[in-house]
Amino acid sequence: MSRPSHGGNLAWAATIAGCPASSLLDFSASINPLGPPTTVITAIEAAFSQLNHYPDPNYFSLRSHLSTHHSIPIDYILPGNGSAELLTWVGRELAQQDETVLLTPAFGDYQRALTAFNAQIKTIPFDVLTQISLNEIIPTDADFSRSGLLLNNPHNPTGRLFSRAEILPLLDRFGLVVIDEAFMDFLPPDRSESLIAEVERYPNLIILRSLTKFYSLPGLRLGYAIAHPDFLQRWQAWRDPWPVNVLAEAAAIAGLQDQDFQQQTWDWLARVKPQLKETLNQIPGLFTLESAANYFLVQTEMSSSQLQRQLLIHHQLLIRDCLSFPELGDRFFRVAVRTESENLQLIHALQTTFNSLV
Amino acid sequence: MSRPSHGGNLAWAATIAGCPASSLLDFSASINPLGPPTTVITAIEAAFSQLNHYPDPNYFSLRSHLSTHHSIPIDYILPGNGSAELLTWVGRELAQQDETVLLTPAFGDYQRALTAFNAQIKTIPFDVLTQISLNEIIPTDADFSRSGLLLNNPHNPTGRLFSRAEILPLLDRFGLVVIDEAFMDFLPPDRSESLIAEVERYPNLIILRSLTKFYSLPGLRLGYAIAHPDFLQRWQAWRDPWPVNVLAEAAAIAGLQDQDFQQQTWDWLARVKPQLKETLNQIPGLFTLESAANYFLVQTEMSSSQLQRQLLIHHQLLIRDCLSFPELGDRFFRVAVRTESENLQLIHALQTTFNSLV
Repeated sequence: MSRPSHGGNLAWAATIAGCPASSLLDFSASINPLGPPTTVITAIEAAFSQLNHYPDPNYFSLRSHLSTHHSIPIDYILPGNGSAELLTWVGRELAQQDETVLLTPAFGDYQRALTAFNAQIKTIPFDVLTQISLNEIIPTDADFSRSGLLLNNPHNPTGRLFSRAEILPLLDRFGLVVIDEAFMDFLPPDRSESLIAEVERYPNLIILRSLTKFYSLPGLRLGYAIAHPDFLQRWQAWRDPWPVNVLAEAAAIAGLQDQDFQQQTWDWLARVKPQLKETLNQIPGLFTLESAANYFLVQTEMSSSQLQRQLLIHHQLLIRDCLSFPELGDRFFRVAVRTESENLQLIHALQTTFNSLV
Repeated sequence: MSRPSHGGNLAWAATIAGCPASSLLDFSASINPLGPPTTVITAIEAAFSQLNHYPDPNYFSLRSHLSTHHSIPIDYILPGNGSAELLTWVGRELAQQDETVLLTPAFGDYQRALTAFNAQIKTIPFDVLTQISLNEIIPTDADFSRSGLLLNNPHNPTGRLFSRAEILPLLDRFGLVVIDEAFMDFLPPDRSESLIAEVERYPNLIILRSLTKFYSLPGLRLGYAIAHPDFLQRWQAWRDPWPVNVLAEAAAIAGLQDQDFQQQTWDWLARVKPQLKETLNQIPGLFTLESAANYFLVQTEMSSSQLQRQLLIHHQLLIRDCLSFPELGDRFFRVAVRTESENLQLIHALQTTFNSLV
């Protein structure tokens, strides 16, 4: 079995660990460990009666709920089969620009979507270990009026949060700006730096959102785009009429309404994230970066692929090596924040592994 | 609400009928009324525990089952989010040919997939009322070596079945041949005219299959392509890594193994299809075409959109008008074969409507 280029390939990891995939403790995919919420599971079961009907190609009900949730007109919203499906069409839009700027390290699937439509990619590397601002990373003297920008916020894999104030000036400088806010839900509303409220003002702004990470449904696939209707109508003409399945639609509507689960998630993160960072940093040889998201990028003195292998074999525990982020090489890994007891298992496994090899 | 361009838009029909969509008797979408099988529902429920994991991007388990089912090497198989998702990438392949031949009337989504990638479309109309052979429809003196052919078999909306013997010579004449076998499962194995067994011999042959019609899961989305690995690897590089959700994967595996349900479906069709055809033809003003599939195209002396409206308002019953097949105009409609008692409701509703208007 070949090494997966994306995270979360449990089948591959299970063969290394020598256990069923279901026995692995997965820190590689940054999924909310508290979900899926019971309200969502109940909604999925209730939607079984709709399995023998095609989805509504207008996804009117889901779009109405998203419209209310974000206070954005319904025409600015398009659901997709995971945000990865929408990224495909974003790639096609960006390919029409002269070039697309990617801040590296960047999520590996960006490369896929851009390459699929022969987009020109201009990578701008930034030092993940310093808190240099976006305006210092992106040259101020270059002409980007016919360029695209594809940016993750919070950034993956670093967890770095760019402020609205940093991003807004770029909307006047770039031909097209795509902000992938796949992990923005993990910030409580008063700390969010989402640009959703700006889409009506900027016809060159596309926001991608995911519901599968926060509501723990990556297996069901659900994301959405928020952008000017001209984009969304074009994508609908390109793609098939029913990309979102009826169970995902029902799950999303239930999740959006579950304010208890949302609060519970923010409370859990506020409690366990600082603990995890502190205990990770107590292990000599590790340095954990500041993160606004539900994961940490960790610098390691030991090869991260060697570390990953040891953790799989001896602890059936999967961390995300960063080989798919070539700029990071073999000296970084990423871990999701999980429950308090699971985080302790991670710490224990890392301590044991470092002690045995040092 | 605007009129849907595709069949199966129950939300639109429900507003005309003045009832909830769930109360409509839907003859417009050609879905097996016996499903989904209980084995499939059980498999979906059992897969709930996988919702919080990403699907295996290799879809190894599903592809293994399909490989066994069709006696085709696993590398020749690619699952998709409904065959409609795969049709998108077929459209991109066909766009690289000088032109693509469509026999019209043709399924409306073919136009979408071809237009999405600016493919040149060459329509060849054929008379749906005569049993003229494929070799008579497609000119024998033209050079199609740089042309694509996109053909439905059984044909939608007519139900016409083209034989392997008719299609095989076209594989030597056309640059690329795509056979959409979305409804082929409804034929018992001894009557199938599938070209799946030919894919290893013809690197210019792509077969599309659907599992959502036979197993009554259009809401869950599941189809697959069978073709030379060069095609499939290219599409995987274009599209997102996880197009098929984990519940659809589990459902498909269970359905493929449910031989009782398969036999039950073939037995039901063999019993009720001839009955439905005969009773339809007893209504003056209707002529029902021969069909190898689980639906009938019916020629009508009354406007089909007027008929559709009357059936919705007075019987909460939805037939498929054929306005999305412009060649057929307003004098044809399509109905799915449903259960014996539902078919009787259709007959009764049609009789009443014709009597009230003649």
